[in-house]
Amino acid sequence: MSLSRIPEKIQMQIIKEKHQQIRSILQNQSIDCWFIFVRETIANPDPIMNLVIGGHVVWQSAFIFSFIKNEFKKMAIIGNFDAEKEKQKEIWDEVIGYKEGISPFLQEIIKKLNPSKIAVNYSEDDVISDGLSHGMYLKLCKILPNYHDRFISASTIIHAIKGRKTKTEAELITQACEITERINQDISKHLKIGMSEVEIQALFHKKMNQMGLDEAWERNSCPSVDAGPEKVFGHVGPSATFKTKLGHTLHNDFGIKYQGYCSDLQRMWFFGKENEIPEELHDAFNVVKNAILKAAEFIKPGVIGHAVDNIARDYIKSMGYDEYDHALGHQVGTNAHDGGLVLAPLWERYGDIPRGIVEENNIFTLELDVKTQNFGTVSLEEIIQVTQYGCRFLIPPQKKFITIS
Amino acid sequence: MSLSRIPEKIQMQIIKEKHQQIRSILQNQSIDCWFIFVRETIANPDPIMNLVIGGHVVWQSAFIFSFIKNEFKKMAIIGNFDAEKEKQKEIWDEVIGYKEGISPFLQEIIKKLNPSKIAVNYSEDDVISDGLSHGMYLKLCKILPNYHDRFISASTIIHAIKGRKTKTEAELITQACEITERINQDISKHLKIGMSEVEIQALFHKKMNQMGLDEAWERNSCPSVDAGPEKVFGHVGPSATFKTKLGHTLHNDFGIKYQGYCSDLQRMWFFGKENEIPEELHDAFNVVKNAILKAAEFIKPGVIGHAVDNIARDYIKSMGYDEYDHALGHQVGTNAHDGGLVLAPLWERYGDIPRGIVEENNIFTLELDVKTQNFGTVSLEEIIQVTQYGCRFLIPPQKKFITIS
Repeated sequence: MSLSRIPEKIQMQIIKEKHQQIRSILQNQSIDCWFIFVRETIANPDPIMNLVIGGHVVWQSAFIFSFIKNEFKKMAIIGNFDAEKEKQKEIWDEVIGYKEGISPFLQEIIKKLNPSKIAVNYSEDDVISDGLSHGMYLKLCKILPNYHDRFISASTIIHAIKGRKTKTEAELITQACEITERINQDISKHLKIGMSEVEIQALFHKKMNQMGLDEAWERNSCPSVDAGPEKVFGHVGPSATFKTKLGHTLHNDFGIKYQGYCSDLQRMWFFGKENEIPEELHDAFNVVKNAILKAAEFIKPGVIGHAVDNIARDYIKSMGYDEYDHALGHQVGTNAHDGGLVLAPLWERYGDIPRGIVEENNIFTLELDVKTQNFGTVSLEEIIQVTQYGCRFLIPPQKKFITIS
Repeated sequence: MSLSRIPEKIQMQIIKEKHQQIRSILQNQSIDCWFIFVRETIANPDPIMNLVIGGHVVWQSAFIFSFIKNEFKKMAIIGNFDAEKEKQKEIWDEVIGYKEGISPFLQEIIKKLNPSKIAVNYSEDDVISDGLSHGMYLKLCKILPNYHDRFISASTIIHAIKGRKTKTEAELITQACEITERINQDISKHLKIGMSEVEIQALFHKKMNQMGLDEAWERNSCPSVDAGPEKVFGHVGPSATFKTKLGHTLHNDFGIKYQGYCSDLQRMWFFGKENEIPEELHDAFNVVKNAILKAAEFIKPGVIGHAVDNIARDYIKSMGYDEYDHALGHQVGTNAHDGGLVLAPLWERYGDIPRGIVEENNIFTLELDVKTQNFGTVSLEEIIQVTQYGCRFLIPPQKKFITIS
């Protein structure tokens, strides 16, 4: 089995840790009922399922968490063929298997619970909190016609579950980063002047195949490989015509999946000796590196997402560079883009998300780029975990160009 | 790279075949505009994306197909970093990259097209047609406040796209079935009396790892392995306590993914010699086999889904067995459960889906089980492709127990 898959035991351990979190999240947020409503999840999963349910279901299924009169209760209503598997997990207080339809069972349970709020998974701005499809929402309104005025978005619950990385999760992400760094170091030994981006990406893919590792995002651009001053960065595959050249840079944006958790790092190389790095490149590298350090010094529990972005953005501009066209940071977890709070400017495409508050144990990328006049883009990306009073880098950040000569 | 992944070239070929289909589907169904609205699709993809777009996007993106005044047009509005990759596919008439937000671009295009109907991806009953999340639906209503009374479900479009397998698709599914059959034959050589279900599943997983093949559904129950009369069938993992025994059966439900396409077959073994098979098992096997053959004789383009299920269900009952607790057949494609029409009874959990009409080049499973008094369940599953006047089995159906002695 691929090293990228989460072993069932570890997944169940994380799910149990998350169920503990859910209890206190419901209590603290004064939400008395949250449920996940899904079907045929191999074809269309809810992105939060892997952290609180695990595995898949075929028929319409409801996974109900309630906190009423100080009692935390967890129930699953699920198609008959899926019921036994769900019971074996030993994470539900009750598992109800049905044959013909879910409606009477779901109606009865909601009637009995009579919750004042029912949180369901929709969000205009956050993909991870938006696992309820529109068709399933319509179905739900038909099954529970007297309750849908109690429906609220579960996004605050899901942000907390996804964002508050447990020790197990933080360790897996750290291991994913360490493996990524080792692959970068190993490939550095095989880099030569005159290689095309396509050839370099093939080295990475070969190494990943040997190690039994999957990429953290689309293979075609994982790693992205950007050689020389002409390359426009973005989610675009490598080119056979762009080649490494003496005096030019190489850049990658690379993440792997290790036991279900992702890394996401950007690194920069220079072809030539250390003392041959042009002043312009040297300056650009330091500005990017320092912008990341400044954001890392600023971030701590309680600060607002866009304020962190602003620290780096303002610094870049004050150093005479154009601001970057993207967010400073996103969370990393089972997805490279793990949803929830983003350290982003207040642009339409980020919606209200950047107004959220940084919490302890959130794990963010810090990433940005600047354009030079003669040598193209300089871009770095690091990963930090928010601690009680600040943050720590999961692995040491890049301090200078990796030189190939 | 795993044999289970679709090579990019083959995927792009299928996407181009599907784009040709979309043109005639829009025309025949008199729908002048269909669009797919997604974001962060690695975390939450639309299940139809892999057949008509391919790859992933980060920011909110709209992929618009229009057929207006006899002109078929295909456009993509997409975040700036994703734009170049989309252009390189050469499947869009126009690709618009945006920086801050999608709204002005989407508003302008819909205003210019002024379609009478706008099909979007929601469906209460069909998972494959339900890729629009509820949050994204709400967002869409805000972006296009004057148009959402023109929104209709795209399910008829998506059923046609998914269901009408191209030659390339049918070949890949056939290859997946052939590989599955070869693995079953190979494992048969290693089956012994006294092996547990867990041990037998491990043989399959080892073989799949060696071949670089992924399972078609959840690994824990792919293959499902069911030994002896006590086992309750379902989507449940193998047991360490249920073991093969002389005079007992073994059953599996097994599918692999080959170049992006799935198989899904059930097979039965008997431990003992052919002439030692008890009459009761022999009869049950023949009734199941014949029910499948009767359904296969009946099915052809134009018949109604639940009518096909009824042929097998009625036959089983007429032979004195209890009816099976599930649908007779589902479509198979990039998913083992490929959505669209299901050959199912009119039960709540199947909604209106079984009222759909069988079309040429649909690929269905035909599967059912009967319970015996003394030897547990007998269950088989075959795969057929609907042809102009009837159907053909993709690989030969199982004719008798595979005996292990």
